Amino acid sequence: MINKLVAKIQKTNAPIVVGLDPMLAYIPEHIKEKAFKEYGETLEGAAEAIWQFNKGILDTTADLIPAVKPQIAMYEQFGVPGVAAYKKTVDYAKSKDLVIIGDVKRGDIGSTSEAYAVGHLGRVQIGSNRIAGFDEDFATVNPYLGSDGIKPFIKVCKEENKGIFILVKTSNPSSGEFQDRLIDGRPLYEWVGEKVNEWGAEHMGECGYSYVGCVVGATYPEMGKVLRKVMPKTYILVPGYGAQGGKAKDLVHYFNEDGLGAIVNSSRGIIAAYKQEAYAKFGAENYADASRQAVLDMIEDIDSALN
Amino acid sequence: MINKLVAKIQKTNAPIVVGLDPMLAYIPEHIKEKAFKEYGETLEGAAEAIWQFNKGILDTTADLIPAVKPQIAMYEQFGVPGVAAYKKTVDYAKSKDLVIIGDVKRGDIGSTSEAYAVGHLGRVQIGSNRIAGFDEDFATVNPYLGSDGIKPFIKVCKEENKGIFILVKTSNPSSGEFQDRLIDGRPLYEWVGEKVNEWGAEHMGECGYSYVGCVVGATYPEMGKVLRKVMPKTYILVPGYGAQGGKAKDLVHYFNEDGLGAIVNSSRGIIAAYKQEAYAKFGAENYADASRQAVLDMIEDIDSALN
Repeated sequence: MINKLVAKIQKTNAPIVVGLDPMLAYIPEHIKEKAFKEYGETLEGAAEAIWQFNKGILDTTADLIPAVKPQIAMYEQFGVPGVAAYKKTVDYAKSKDLVIIGDVKRGDIGSTSEAYAVGHLGRVQIGSNRIAGFDEDFATVNPYLGSDGIKPFIKVCKEENKGIFILVKTSNPSSGEFQDRLIDGRPLYEWVGEKVNEWGAEHMGECGYSYVGCVVGATYPEMGKVLRKVMPKTYILVPGYGAQGGKAKDLVHYFNEDGLGAIVNSSRGIIAAYKQEAYAKFGAENYADASRQAVLDMIEDIDSALN
Repeated sequence: MINKLVAKIQKTNAPIVVGLDPMLAYIPEHIKEKAFKEYGETLEGAAEAIWQFNKGILDTTADLIPAVKPQIAMYEQFGVPGVAAYKKTVDYAKSKDLVIIGDVKRGDIGSTSEAYAVGHLGRVQIGSNRIAGFDEDFATVNPYLGSDGIKPFIKVCKEENKGIFILVKTSNPSSGEFQDRLIDGRPLYEWVGEKVNEWGAEHMGECGYSYVGCVVGATYPEMGKVLRKVMPKTYILVPGYGAQGGKAKDLVHYFNEDGLGAIVNSSRGIIAAYKQEAYAKFGAENYADASRQAVLDMIEDIDSALN
């Protein structure tokens, strides 16, 4: 799957991923009205609204981008119907041949991580059948529990040719509280990065990058520069571009000299583009066209920073 | 909710929680056969089997225990139908007046943690309605992202009188890879414990304990002893008893002198008791009676260690 991701990044010339993190506040009134009319102001109604919203964005942007990253929290908040909308989104994005990065940030002790890995990336044995639960292509994983929490994911990734992105340095303001603390003179995130490098060596793709990637926020470019060197063959998933404050020029050092090695996420900046002044002319009815334009602008922004 | 948990622990004299982590391998053949006959060897069939299995255990043990802890990974592995079985389990346990600890180990950047908090502990605004998604009483939370990831949970806990348990020192063998690393002479888990104490002070229960609890594995009793002192008013959720190797005598120091302050989880040891030699006489048909006996034995084991 890392091979597919790299091939699609090269084909689209777009090292970007669209974060499908639909909040109800982002969704145009006409979509909400229709969904609520059919299902009421219920969990089902909200789930229908976010699904229709996502579908519109996927229909207008899929040809431009290699991947999408649905953030499962935004679906879980609507309970079981929300999780069903997540699954519909994953399946629909897959039908458009997009790579799906499930932003689930799971991680637990061994046997439990195995269940998460099987559920999100693998297939579970039921009687004589092996059935996929969510079937994303990549999942994000939390490293706090150490190797026991990570290895079951790598095992499933090997069986299914799938991948993970492990949190190393997150984009949020307080990420430093623990991640930046010095251990033998180096911050915790560097030690986690070293481990990611080690875990990644166990499962390399033919493209020269590992199936085991990492997450490093766009909001900490100096740390990104160091971590790029700590993990030379690791794909970096970069959240925090745009709405969270990360700028394209800061992202140059997240990439390797081959122009690869990083994929930059934008969520709000793309999916709620129509709410920004720059794209207001599209109007709420044409929110998906605004998203398409925002994708084009993001690709150009990153391209011009890299070249 | 911490007040209710403490009151129920006192009433049952059972500082224990039953981990509802159903693997298909634990489920008696007669339950699986019936479910597969109705729904096939499908995700729906597996979800029905784990739900019926849980229901049996809840029916026979609810009067003995204060709380249950469903591990959502074991449900997520069966996709959307599995998550629906999780929700049914939560609701049914609630109808038995049990306290529900959702073992979800979520945690993300601020706005995303907020969605998790709302979805699991709070109510989401949909039009003019505020609706609960999963509605557990407590959730487990991962601290790697720092305060931004925790505060949104505390905010929802205040609104809804609910609680969280933050991972401090986990029970698995490799938990030390990062958690034990020394920072200014003290292991990371102690720094996390200090923070838990600080966060907990923001939301204290009338019972003298905080709505913000922590997780410390039974498998590291020396660390538990230190962490008890670091976080005197924090309830400790203790996994790792029984199947993972933790012994009752090791758990004495997880409790305060008031006999409170800790709640010990057992999953496999209770729910798959009928598979152990000690309870084999019950037979697979009466698996739930075996679980009841295993609960009684666990209560006695811990009681005799404490007194």
